[in-house]
Amino acid sequence: MRWNKISDAVIRRLPLYLRVLDDLANETDVSLISSQELGVKAGVGPALVRKDLAWFGEFGKQGVGYEVGFLRNELRKILNLEQEMAVGLAGVGSLGEALVRYHLKRYDDNDSFNLRLAALFDSDPTKVGSTVEGITIASLEEIPQKVAEEQIQIVILAVPAEGAQDVANRFIRAGVKCILNYAPVKLHVPDTVQVASVDLSLELQRLAYYVPKPAN
Amino acid sequence: MRWNKISDAVIRRLPLYLRVLDDLANETDVSLISSQELGVKAGVGPALVRKDLAWFGEFGKQGVGYEVGFLRNELRKILNLEQEMAVGLAGVGSLGEALVRYHLKRYDDNDSFNLRLAALFDSDPTKVGSTVEGITIASLEEIPQKVAEEQIQIVILAVPAEGAQDVANRFIRAGVKCILNYAPVKLHVPDTVQVASVDLSLELQRLAYYVPKPAN
Repeated sequence: MRWNKISDAVIRRLPLYLRVLDDLANETDVSLISSQELGVKAGVGPALVRKDLAWFGEFGKQGVGYEVGFLRNELRKILNLEQEMAVGLAGVGSLGEALVRYHLKRYDDNDSFNLRLAALFDSDPTKVGSTVEGITIASLEEIPQKVAEEQIQIVILAVPAEGAQDVANRFIRAGVKCILNYAPVKLHVPDTVQVASVDLSLELQRLAYYVPKPAN
Repeated sequence: MRWNKISDAVIRRLPLYLRVLDDLANETDVSLISSQELGVKAGVGPALVRKDLAWFGEFGKQGVGYEVGFLRNELRKILNLEQEMAVGLAGVGSLGEALVRYHLKRYDDNDSFNLRLAALFDSDPTKVGSTVEGITIASLEEIPQKVAEEQIQIVILAVPAEGAQDVANRFIRAGVKCILNYAPVKLHVPDTVQVASVDLSLELQRLAYYVPKPAN
C-alpha cells in the first residue's frame, strides 16, 4: 500500500517521529505519548504531528495520546523499514569513507534503521578490489550486476560533481529508484526516480540568510 | 533589512535559484531568463519561482522574464552573500576532514559562495595544533576567543552525536546564531539560533518510503 499523494514535507517528518519513538521504546516505563510531547521531542508543532499522522490512519486516541510501540510499528511499515533494505555507495573518497564510518556503522543498534550497506563503487581502478569496513569496492562497470545480486534499492552518491550525473544514470539504468546525492550538482532524473540532496553549499547559503546583519 | 516572516521553505529555494544564475552568469550571451526556465533548471515549478521571488520585490517583467545579473545580485544581497562570512567547523574526524576537502575547497571559483572556512576545532588534544588545508586545529576551550577574533557567524558540527549538544552550547554562548549540524542528534537551542541538520539516517529513511514495494 502506497500513499502517493502525500506531500514529501510530511514524509520528511516521519523519521523524526520514529527517532523519538525508538528512544522511548528503550524506556520500558513509557507506553503512551501525547502529540504535544511527540512534537516537542521531534521539533514539530503538536497540531502538525496530528495532521501528519492522520494521513495514514487513526493512530491515537483523543485525550490519551499514541501508544508508543504501536505507532512505532506503524511508522516502520509506512517507511518500508520492516524489511532490510540494501544500500549502495558510490565514490569511496574521503567523504564516502567518512559516511561509511561515521554514519552507516552506527545503525547496528538502532532497531528502526533496517538499511544495510551492501556495496561500494568507485571509478578509480587503484581502489577497486580493496575493502572498507569489510566491503569490497567494485568498479562502475559492475553496477548492473551488483545492483541485481544485492537487490540494491537506494544509492548514496559521494562522487565529485562532474561525475555525478553519469554515475546516477548508471544506477538508474540498473533499476535503482532512490538516490541520496552528496555531490554539489543538481541531478536530472526521470519522474520515477526520487532524489534527496545533501549539499553543504546550499545549506550554508540558507543559513547565511539568518546571520544577523550589523546594526550600522 | 530582514524579511522575518518569510517561510524557511522559501529561503531554502533561494540558493537553488542562485546556483542557476551563477551558471548563467558565466555564459555571456544569456542576459534574461523566464520563470519557466529558471524553474526547470532549479527543479522548482515556475509558479512557485514567481511566488518565492515576489516576497522580496518586483524582480522580473511579465512576458520578459528576469535579468540574470540583476536577479543574481539581489539574491546575493537577500542571502547575505555580498560580504565574506566566516565559518567554523568542529570535529575534525574523518567526516569533518572530508567536508573541508570535498566541499569547502571548491568555492574558491564560485562568486556567490562568499563563505570562508576560518577555524577548525576538536576536543582531541592530539589533534589540536595540527593543520588541515592550512588551518590550525584549535581546542574547544578556544571557541570564545576564536569566534570573536575571526568573527565566526556559522559553525558546522561534525562531532559525534554524544558531544554535539555540548559543542553547540559552547558556540551559542560565544554568540554564534547559525549551526549546520551533521551529528545524528536533535540539538536543543534557543529560538534566536537557527539550526540546519544534515542527517544521513533521516534522509535514507525518507527515501525508503519511495522504494517500490514488491508486487506480491
